[in-house]
Amino acid sequence: MAILYGGDYNPEQWPEDTWQNDWDLMKPVGINSATINVFSWALLEPEEGKFDFSKLDKIVHLLEKNHIQIVMATATGALPFWMTNKYPQINRVDTYGRRQVGGKRENACPNSPDFQRLAKELVEQLAKRYSKVDNIAYWHISNEYNGYCYCDNCAKAFRTWLKKEYHDDLESINHAWGTNFWSHTYHSWDEIIPPMRIGDTYDNGKPVLSGLDLAYRRFQSDSLLNNFKMERDIIKKFDNRPITTNLMGSQKDLDYFKWAKEMDVASWDNYPSFDTPASFTAMQHDLMRGVKAKPFMLMEQTPSQQNWQPFNSLKQPNQMRMLSYQAMAHGAKTIQFFQLKQARNGSEKLHSAVISHSLSMETRVGKELKQLGHELAQLPEDLANAQNNNQVGIIFDWNDYWALEDCMGPTKNLDYVQEVFDYYRAFYNRKIGVDMISKASDFKKYKLIVAPSMYTNSPEVTKKIEDYVENGGNFVTDYMSGIADKDDNVFLGGYPGLLKRVLGLKFDETDALPFDHQNKLVADRTIIGKGSLVCDLIQPVTAHSLAKYSGVFYDDNSVLTKNHFGRGYAFYAGSKLDDSAMNFFMQNILDQSGIKVDLTKHDVEIVKRTGQNDTYTFVINTSDQVKKVSNPDPAAIDLLTNQETKDLLELKPFDVLILKK
Amino acid sequence: MAILYGGDYNPEQWPEDTWQNDWDLMKPVGINSATINVFSWALLEPEEGKFDFSKLDKIVHLLEKNHIQIVMATATGALPFWMTNKYPQINRVDTYGRRQVGGKRENACPNSPDFQRLAKELVEQLAKRYSKVDNIAYWHISNEYNGYCYCDNCAKAFRTWLKKEYHDDLESINHAWGTNFWSHTYHSWDEIIPPMRIGDTYDNGKPVLSGLDLAYRRFQSDSLLNNFKMERDIIKKFDNRPITTNLMGSQKDLDYFKWAKEMDVASWDNYPSFDTPASFTAMQHDLMRGVKAKPFMLMEQTPSQQNWQPFNSLKQPNQMRMLSYQAMAHGAKTIQFFQLKQARNGSEKLHSAVISHSLSMETRVGKELKQLGHELAQLPEDLANAQNNNQVGIIFDWNDYWALEDCMGPTKNLDYVQEVFDYYRAFYNRKIGVDMISKASDFKKYKLIVAPSMYTNSPEVTKKIEDYVENGGNFVTDYMSGIADKDDNVFLGGYPGLLKRVLGLKFDETDALPFDHQNKLVADRTIIGKGSLVCDLIQPVTAHSLAKYSGVFYDDNSVLTKNHFGRGYAFYAGSKLDDSAMNFFMQNILDQSGIKVDLTKHDVEIVKRTGQNDTYTFVINTSDQVKKVSNPDPAAIDLLTNQETKDLLELKPFDVLILKK
Amino acid sequence: MAILYGGDYNPEQWPEDTWQNDWDLMKPVGINSATINVFSWALLEPEEGKFDFSKLDKIVHLLEKNHIQIVMATATGALPFWMTNKYPQINRVDTYGRRQVGGKRENACPNSPDFQRLAKELVEQLAKRYSKVDNIAYWHISNEYNGYCYCDNCAKAFRTWLKKEYHDDLESINHAWGTNFWSHTYHSWDEIIPPMRIGDTYDNGKPVLSGLDLAYRRFQSDSLLNNFKMERDIIKKFDNRPITTNLMGSQKDLDYFKWAKEMDVASWDNYPSFDTPASFTAMQHDLMRGVKAKPFMLMEQTPSQQNWQPFNSLKQPNQMRMLSYQAMAHGAKTIQFFQLKQARNGSEKLHSAVISHSLSMETRVGKELKQLGHELAQLPEDLANAQNNNQVGIIFDWNDYWALEDCMGPTKNLDYVQEVFDYYRAFYNRKIGVDMISKASDFKKYKLIVAPSMYTNSPEVTKKIEDYVENGGNFVTDYMSGIADKDDNVFLGGYPGLLKRVLGLKFDETDALPFDHQNKLVADRTIIGKGSLVCDLIQPVTAHSLAKYSGVFYDDNSVLTKNHFGRGYAFYAGSKLDDSAMNFFMQNILDQSGIKVDLTKHDVEIVKRTGQNDTYTFVINTSDQVKKVSNPDPAAIDLLTNQETKDLLELKPFDVLILKK
Repeated sequence: MAILYGGDYNPEQWPEDTWQNDWDLMKPVGINSATINVFSWALLEPEEGKFDFSKLDKIVHLLEKNHIQIVMATATGALPFWMTNKYPQINRVDTYGRRQVGGKRENACPNSPDFQRLAKELVEQLAKRYSKVDNIAYWHISNEYNGYCYCDNCAKAFRTWLKKEYHDDLESINHAWGTNFWSHTYHSWDEIIPPMRIGDTYDNGKPVLSGLDLAYRRFQSDSLLNNFKMERDIIKKFDNRPITTNLMGSQKDLDYFKWAKEMDVASWDNYPSFDTPASFTAMQHDLMRGVKAKPFMLMEQTPSQQNWQPFNSLKQPNQMRMLSYQAMAHGAKTIQFFQLKQARNGSEKLHSAVISHSLSMETRVGKELKQLGHELAQLPEDLANAQNNNQVGIIFDWNDYWALEDCMGPTKNLDYVQEVFDYYRAFYNRKIGVDMISKASDFKKYKLIVAPSMYTNSPEVTKKIEDYVENGGNFVTDYMSGIADKDDNVFLGGYPGLLKRVLGLKFDETDALPFDHQNKLVADRTIIGKGSLVCDLIQPVTAHSLAKYSGVFYDDNSVLTKNHFGRGYAFYAGSKLDDSAMNFFMQNILDQSGIKVDLTKHDVEIVKRTGQNDTYTFVINTSDQVKKVSNPDPAAIDLLTNQETKDLLELKPFDVLILKK
Repeated sequence: MAILYGGDYNPEQWPEDTWQNDWDLMKPVGINSATINVFSWALLEPEEGKFDFSKLDKIVHLLEKNHIQIVMATATGALPFWMTNKYPQINRVDTYGRRQVGGKRENACPNSPDFQRLAKELVEQLAKRYSKVDNIAYWHISNEYNGYCYCDNCAKAFRTWLKKEYHDDLESINHAWGTNFWSHTYHSWDEIIPPMRIGDTYDNGKPVLSGLDLAYRRFQSDSLLNNFKMERDIIKKFDNRPITTNLMGSQKDLDYFKWAKEMDVASWDNYPSFDTPASFTAMQHDLMRGVKAKPFMLMEQTPSQQNWQPFNSLKQPNQMRMLSYQAMAHGAKTIQFFQLKQARNGSEKLHSAVISHSLSMETRVGKELKQLGHELAQLPEDLANAQNNNQVGIIFDWNDYWALEDCMGPTKNLDYVQEVFDYYRAFYNRKIGVDMISKASDFKKYKLIVAPSMYTNSPEVTKKIEDYVENGGNFVTDYMSGIADKDDNVFLGGYPGLLKRVLGLKFDETDALPFDHQNKLVADRTIIGKGSLVCDLIQPVTAHSLAKYSGVFYDDNSVLTKNHFGRGYAFYAGSKLDDSAMNFFMQNILDQSGIKVDLTKHDVEIVKRTGQNDTYTFVINTSDQVKKVSNPDPAAIDLLTNQETKDLLELKPFDVLILKK
Repeated sequence: MAILYGGDYNPEQWPEDTWQNDWDLMKPVGINSATINVFSWALLEPEEGKFDFSKLDKIVHLLEKNHIQIVMATATGALPFWMTNKYPQINRVDTYGRRQVGGKRENACPNSPDFQRLAKELVEQLAKRYSKVDNIAYWHISNEYNGYCYCDNCAKAFRTWLKKEYHDDLESINHAWGTNFWSHTYHSWDEIIPPMRIGDTYDNGKPVLSGLDLAYRRFQSDSLLNNFKMERDIIKKFDNRPITTNLMGSQKDLDYFKWAKEMDVASWDNYPSFDTPASFTAMQHDLMRGVKAKPFMLMEQTPSQQNWQPFNSLKQPNQMRMLSYQAMAHGAKTIQFFQLKQARNGSEKLHSAVISHSLSMETRVGKELKQLGHELAQLPEDLANAQNNNQVGIIFDWNDYWALEDCMGPTKNLDYVQEVFDYYRAFYNRKIGVDMISKASDFKKYKLIVAPSMYTNSPEVTKKIEDYVENGGNFVTDYMSGIADKDDNVFLGGYPGLLKRVLGLKFDETDALPFDHQNKLVADRTIIGKGSLVCDLIQPVTAHSLAKYSGVFYDDNSVLTKNHFGRGYAFYAGSKLDDSAMNFFMQNILDQSGIKVDLTKHDVEIVKRTGQNDTYTFVINTSDQVKKVSNPDPAAIDLLTNQETKDLLELKPFDVLILKK
């Protein structure tokens, strides 16, 4: 199968007599697939129990006729008004206790029995009817799942979920969440209610009982996952083709590592802003590859302009192509757009599309789409399924994310994704590939594991880390790590709890620096950079101090340490490092880990994928300037031109080379 | 009738034995009118159906006795508590679904049958009783209508309104609003609900279906207008004197062009802030004259200080007089204040008034009021009714305003009123008088029509513009113009839709510049200024390119164009122009249009009104500095001193001259 | 009794077998008291009417066994979930009309009959049972009372409260609040509803009827006070030991002068932020001493770090000790912490405590706690009960606070606490001790009374001020003083109302300066500094002008005045003074008042307390720098070392000396 080059297609928004013209325009461009039926519930079921597939049949037929691969959505992402009017409890209740009314999308209460029943009925009909269609490539369940509900149905379902998680033992909840705090002791299950702004959270949204809030987040993530699984299981009864739902990178609400286990393939929607660094987009791709540790689908991106950001810049010439190949470099096996035909009305009418309002492909963007389409058509299938094998794993953990969001103190400025990105970027800038992994991943594959702000910990994870390091692994972590268990009970006896042993240090205090205050950091009486955000007042035990604070009352305390543990090393950073201090720290880490940095490859992105047959090195100019770079793979062939490559590569603005070997 | 010099008067807030003293103070100042009964419903009807006009009778008698002209309000602008308690549905529901409780003002649900009935009963009593009073000059219905309601009564009335607007055809609504987007298809009228924050709008308030939101805005504007019309019709049964309600300049909620048709005379409330440019106030006056294309009443201004702004500066010496004459220059035929006597309590107690808390007129402000009063008494009636005849019309359109507010993309920074003001100010700075007009106005009167960000368009308006230009008119428009029809359906085939022909250009892309980014603009290799906000990537077809972008990837695209079309010219600007670029553009436009700029009249405001007998040229120093300016009308007489004028005029800070010829 | 050195202790959050270890750790540190039972309602009454004191009995027994003084709380500060679920009306309704659900704390509706009944039942049980315990030192009712409710029960109770306050006369309310404004006239008591955001307040929260809002604030403060009094009266039946509740400095909601009358001893919780000036903390202490004009308990502070502020800095070495002695200098007779043992979970887990997560006292903070504990153990009881006698009184008045919060105009930037602090700091910087007093305090004790922004006034207070000045007192006030009566009716006849006579001036206008605009102030043609915020345009009558404005249109108006009145002087400032202008003004005031400033005592805080036996002068280095200062009391003995003191004192960072004489 060729690399899918397509996107969301909503012909039901247009007169039928315009449909064939869409394909007359898009087939020459190379568009070979369409994601359909994403938001058609109101058309498919105009009143409860009465189904009408006539329009969808026509759309499928249109695509069959034009030999277009279909990504078939289940249409459950947005609700018909008859449904939200008839069953108000399907509408979510927000954290202020406000029952929503109909409209928008991705907002059904996941625990509404009515919603579950109606979605089941629809998807059964769809799966039965369209499982026979040959050119369906994937099933696409709902759309961009997100958000939480706080209604009574959720409260009830939450208690059921808790009974299972806590073995039907209310006392174990009282113990796990420390409910004697502020008279929160539960004496019956019915006393447990969701944490809401009109209830048990502060004005800043932080919960009083973080144990409760963490449980509620897990429960809501699971509730939506149950919606997904219900639809998936119905489809699986009729059809064996792969099933996905489109994810959204490092969003906060859902634990994608848990979700990905239930998905045949991960897919996601990439919408960088005008000021999103290329390195951040790279991290998002690596995360979306990481949740299944497999190539993923780029389900959505835009040919040029978004519409929902504060400032929707155009993508510059070649930038869309660059972003497409960047995705592929990090593991994408499809290139898909939202959307194929720009809407005339509704809130997304100014979101660019393959067919723009001009109804012409002879536009700047149209020509770029065509060039990319023709290039993709030449690429080997081996590339689409190639693996990204890296020496460094960075742990990303939604439970840590949530627990840090819930944490009152020490600073309001800590942002989990930003903390992870600090380390990701340090590797990215050194052209060192990274896998985004979970605590459950196989550590042994990696020379180096980094766990930024790994707030929650357990004896099991501690043992896994200790075993990894003992056997020669290198482990890095930093402030706000190892603080508490999964219910947010702090590990006693000094920070960072169970990690004290492998790190060879302890501390009792963490200073919080206001705003942009910074402390100087020194090694051998030389300033190596600055620390900000927080400062752990580290007392090394067995660890070797790499750097200390300077000019503050805790001068004597270490900020960077390295501990020889078994055959490996464990590193710790007690403060947020600026570039200079990060450079010092990384040099120590990389030297010890035996990971080489080729400093000749500066200023472009270099990513490698390994296929069954060949190795593919992507050289990506993410900037709007010409870049010259020494060839990282001198013997390689330029995959797109099939020509040999020179020692010095010159890349035009946003240009990309794929070196095959 | 002398020029009305008065304002809101609320003696019911004071002991009766103080009333005559008010007039002993104010008559020497020249106050000759009083607006009464604005907020007296609770006094007039202490319980449902029981009326008590005794206090109002006394007030009317007081004013008759003192020979004071009355502006008689209908008292329906604020609701008694017995009413809001007894009929909770009279209280509006806000966009978050919160039913309001009693209090504040201008907040009755316009579609509440109870409110309609009770208002009707009150106004019938009032009209019957006071139609016999001789010294009523005007009727004043309610007060500062504004705001929307989202209750069930409104939802019901909205469906009725829609049935009429869309010919009882639900399918035509589905088509007009593109409801297949996100499964919004309506299958029955009852499925249509108002667009609310707890429903179909984004967190930023933008609607999912702009067609629905635009309709709801029109409906709510009409609903309040129906309230107005009901009261007006009752009064008309008893009294033929002119009826108004006080408007609020470029407020967003109500389509004043539609309202003005129903009013005998427009009136408005002018409350500039300490940092409001004089040019902005001028535009507001011109708009308030424009809605009826007739002189208007300045219903409210303050003698010195407001109370509800963040920083309530004093008006400086002579500034109140200057602002009064500025109003008159732009078409005011009355000078009225809020209010005649400063309140002792309530939220407006620190709002200045003719009689201040000092209870003395021998204050700085009191003396200025007296001077102005004596001047106004001398002015000829011919001036009050004089016309403002201008060569330039700027289109202001509430539907464009609303549609741009509803628009997701391309930038959050677009502000319709600011866009209009950019062009208004360009003329103001050149002493070129402007009429604020609607798309329904007679274009032929003008040498030049400017339509800033004229987002919505139609074949009819397009034809009107084309006819106008073909017959020698000059037309200017800019970015975000001509995009969509009245239901926000984008015109296909390239921007700016139907305007492509008259403008002689097209484009497919509009870049959005973040924050205060600017692009350089060049003509003949010379930088003419900078563009910001958005950049249309214009491809001239028949148009002549006046200027292009420089230093961006779309260098080759035009930013300013001029198209010879028939006997006239159509100009287009693809970006928000800084002063320098605007200067370049205006020079081209004015040269072509044959509108002269007299550069000797710098730095003061010059406005001309034409009466039956004479022409009146206002020379207004809007600054706190002395200004010297060459006499724009050397043969004229100074109306206030009745003396001849010199060739060089010297104006003290905030001074004003009225030159009569 | 030794000085209490202890804090909140929540052993119910920990396994019982850890309890004795807490005291094995804390007794060597000197901890001698524990505040218990603050949030145990859910444990004490696991279901309605079923009480279980077994755990509390054990805790009391533990403390008795270890000879620890108990501060016994009544546990009514947080509600069990069974209660908030069973009686939803116990949950408050917020100003947006949202009924809260269970959780958080200090949020019972004070007018809920169910809450009142249930609290009564609990406290009766507690008082009866524990009144026999010997080592209870104080009773502590509820916790940090705060916040308002807007429910129907409150509305009902409000009407009852109003009937009493306004002598059952609805007309007197209509008159007092000026309800004819905006048709707010009440015709029956039931028409009165609380001022809410969904009702009678503007979007910025300012009320339409400030009279109503002021009454509602008084009523809500009284309602919570009634809750306090109910509990107090129950305890008093069984136990005569002193009763307190912990206050919160200059918080806005409650009128602490009224509250303090009902309390045996005042206590409060001191939580400065990283950027709180020492002078501001000093003012808070003086206010908390002032509400009863007696020594107070420092009920809560933190050993090092808070958790709920945006940036929770560590206290630096010796800073906790310094803050403890600063409290004592200003009248504290106990030093207590929140809390004794750091929580493992819940929102306060990162709030530092005597026993930290390390479970060791051999930490930096632990060692500092131990040093302080040993010092406090040596201090004489005479010191704890010593008086602060000062020559200057500053009026702090919650009614003024509220009225200024409610005021629409002239500027949004006026902040009552900041206005008071401006003057407080001026004295603080000059080492002049201040008493924070009420309008009901005895003025004659003071050489100088300062009343910053004393918005409300009455004939009685006016007479009191006039008598005070006539008899030789010195009185200072400034802008926004004397404006209105207790119901916010402006005094007519020119500002500042009834104060015109004693001040010897009047004015009609007050300019508001936007943002950080400033006007120059001059005396004898010399610039003495700048004024900001507002500018009263003062016309001296009998007063002498000390300084005028310069460079504004009101040049001729005075800004600073001094009026000889009887045997004393009354000073007035018409603008917010910068340091330079304040210096000029203070010099005039202090010279006239005969208050000496010893300029040698610079840069440290100096506070004096007078005991039965000795005088104690605290010399406090509030900075992290070494300070040298001439000994303010050369003959004194250093209380902590019992050694003689030198003429030149050298204080290490955050060091404190107590000089006994």
